[in-house]
Amino acid sequence: MSGFLDVIARRRDGLGNSEADLRMLAQGAAEGCLPDEQLAAWLMAAYLRPLHPQETAWLTVAMAESGERLDLTGLPRPWVDKHSTGGVGDKATLVLLPLLAACGLTVVKMSGRGLGITGGTVDKLESVPGFRMDLSPEEMKEQAERIGLAITGQTPKLAPADKKLYALRDVTGTVGSMPLIVSSILSKKIAGGAECIVLDVKCGSGAFMKTLDEAKELAQLLVDTADLAGLPTRALVTDMSQPLGVAVGNALEVAEAIEILQGRGNARLRTLCLELASLTLEASGLVFSRTEGLERASAALFEGLALDKARLWFKAQGCEYDILDVVAALPRAPVQVEILSDAAGYLAALDAEQVGRAVVDLGGGRKRKEDLIDPSVGVECLVHVGEKVEAGKPVVRIHARDAVSAERARDALIEAIRFSESPPAGQPLVLDRR
Amino acid sequence: MSGFLDVIARRRDGLGNSEADLRMLAQGAAEGCLPDEQLAAWLMAAYLRPLHPQETAWLTVAMAESGERLDLTGLPRPWVDKHSTGGVGDKATLVLLPLLAACGLTVVKMSGRGLGITGGTVDKLESVPGFRMDLSPEEMKEQAERIGLAITGQTPKLAPADKKLYALRDVTGTVGSMPLIVSSILSKKIAGGAECIVLDVKCGSGAFMKTLDEAKELAQLLVDTADLAGLPTRALVTDMSQPLGVAVGNALEVAEAIEILQGRGNARLRTLCLELASLTLEASGLVFSRTEGLERASAALFEGLALDKARLWFKAQGCEYDILDVVAALPRAPVQVEILSDAAGYLAALDAEQVGRAVVDLGGGRKRKEDLIDPSVGVECLVHVGEKVEAGKPVVRIHARDAVSAERARDALIEAIRFSESPPAGQPLVLDRR
Repeated sequence: MSGFLDVIARRRDGLGNSEADLRMLAQGAAEGCLPDEQLAAWLMAAYLRPLHPQETAWLTVAMAESGERLDLTGLPRPWVDKHSTGGVGDKATLVLLPLLAACGLTVVKMSGRGLGITGGTVDKLESVPGFRMDLSPEEMKEQAERIGLAITGQTPKLAPADKKLYALRDVTGTVGSMPLIVSSILSKKIAGGAECIVLDVKCGSGAFMKTLDEAKELAQLLVDTADLAGLPTRALVTDMSQPLGVAVGNALEVAEAIEILQGRGNARLRTLCLELASLTLEASGLVFSRTEGLERASAALFEGLALDKARLWFKAQGCEYDILDVVAALPRAPVQVEILSDAAGYLAALDAEQVGRAVVDLGGGRKRKEDLIDPSVGVECLVHVGEKVEAGKPVVRIHARDAVSAERARDALIEAIRFSESPPAGQPLVLDRR
Repeated sequence: MSGFLDVIARRRDGLGNSEADLRMLAQGAAEGCLPDEQLAAWLMAAYLRPLHPQETAWLTVAMAESGERLDLTGLPRPWVDKHSTGGVGDKATLVLLPLLAACGLTVVKMSGRGLGITGGTVDKLESVPGFRMDLSPEEMKEQAERIGLAITGQTPKLAPADKKLYALRDVTGTVGSMPLIVSSILSKKIAGGAECIVLDVKCGSGAFMKTLDEAKELAQLLVDTADLAGLPTRALVTDMSQPLGVAVGNALEVAEAIEILQGRGNARLRTLCLELASLTLEASGLVFSRTEGLERASAALFEGLALDKARLWFKAQGCEYDILDVVAALPRAPVQVEILSDAAGYLAALDAEQVGRAVVDLGGGRKRKEDLIDPSVGVECLVHVGEKVEAGKPVVRIHARDAVSAERARDALIEAIRFSESPPAGQPLVLDRR
């Protein structure tokens, strides 16, 4: 105990912590042998005296090694994992996984559920009839070997130190520490065993990072820390001031992802998927440049290889429908209401955070972890920022359980929409690459 | 809960805490409705973003009001309390209490046990046969009304918020925060109901504050905070580089205090008692100046009024012996060993911390709260820093349970003693007044 008191004192006094210090912290958190009050004191000291990159890497590896690790050794090709810091309408994972597998990578991903305005891949895929999100490690490995990709929501024993520290950060005002955010994200990826990671750091009202400076700092710290931990990693900083693509809501997003895999759909969403794919291909060593990666990924998408891979994937994880029949089989909300444009003009803003909140209120997201969600509800963003819109044309379409909740969403969404008479400055999609 | 998360965030971000914030903290700590990890996070934030004087006063009062308060309203004369930050051989309380009562003040004191090298008044008085340290509030009040002074070791329900926060500070590396130290000391005094406080801030190797700058800062903060809390307070900063007076050890210190009350004994100890008394008399408004206070206190001491008061006091609290017979009735250790001077010279150092540790090792102090102590053991410091000593003369006398522990103490004490050929610079007793 007095040993950890010294660890706290060194953090508090700005003297830094050694690898052994941070290992004591991670093991103590994982095994429950350090009391919560000591962990909390360390966390606050770490908030006010932030960890240096090397310390962050030590903590990351120590947390990754604090519990079980996914043992997928022996997978034949370079295998990768993808992580988004979370946004509104972010269904890129659903496109990227089969796309990367079609390009020759092995993709193994553990996903979580959504909380607040941030959607979760588990929730999205569970709206697909029959789709299993409870694959065991053995099933993951067998499927990844066979078809090149697998996803699961089962991750209880990986990085238990992170689980413990995250819960404490939540109640002690220490969530916002950049090095602690970084070690939390990366420890789970390392415990998951990936050989390469691609990160999508979201930036804007619908994301945790509200400003570009913050998002760039997080992206750089993620890449630097992963590098120190020996894991090739690339990061994009991308816009989350408006929702990504058209659909926000679980079943609606699955339908949109399938549309993208067919080579159609929203250009901005497709661009993000191709950018992330090219970066991953380059980082994994499968191609020599991002340009070559972009060519390979575009070919896989437009020649239908990614769709074929998705077909195999959905089938392997229990879906009885062919991928092209899934959309019709998805749950559909009974009430649709559109918001029409009053006058001709340009869409100047469609605030991601407000759209996200409206979807949560419709029942499509969780306010608390234990909430149940309705996969069918959501919002379609039919016009995007910078686009011209004629008077009387639909701007958003609400999918609701009933007229009352549709009306409430309508009132909320009107606040999220802003028009202008002249074309507004467009918001670029990719804000930074690391 | 989310309310307290905001309190933590304001501390963390340097925005400060309101009176209501600190009341929530104190009540939450006292009633157990705030989890330890949240209190610990606040404490570390408070360590790294220290409380301002007004915040310290708010916290002090909130902690004082977090539990029961000693209700001694109706005591006829201005009544005072005394506190020392703790040192080696500090028996000033035993002299000061009857001295102040003899000067016309009412003195009511709650005392604690010793821990580590710091002695406790409860332990010292419990070495007196029959002396009761468990007076109830009713007994305290009755005795204070009748003879002007009372002391007890029973303080379980005062300032429970301080008790909780102190225990947490101990395990979270946040003991050393000056404003937290101040609010801890003063909250118990305010809950105890005193109308005036005199503080002895010890400074040197045998004290918590090792440097004069730290000790002055603590003294000033104590006085400023008490002032903001509406409590007249005076503080001395006094030397603790060597033990105070001759005796270190519980029964030995009682005997020395009685010697002082007889107008004899160590001049440095007597000076401290008279200085503290004069400051208290001035602060309580009973005299107009410190000089007048010094005259009044000296008269009470040398005319035997303080001794008479001590006689009544010891009797009232259960001691069957006359005060002048107490010394012979005190427990006495069976083995005495002296350390003699090798050669003629001057005593250059007698390190208080090392003497304190030697007495703890002899069994006269506690390493852990639950340790039992032996009241008879201790060390007499027969020569003081700056004094001339002849070859072959005793410098210290060890009182031990057996020859083995005496020998061990001897070896340790030889390390604490340093001689010089020329007279060393003397260390003043009173280093600062606030």
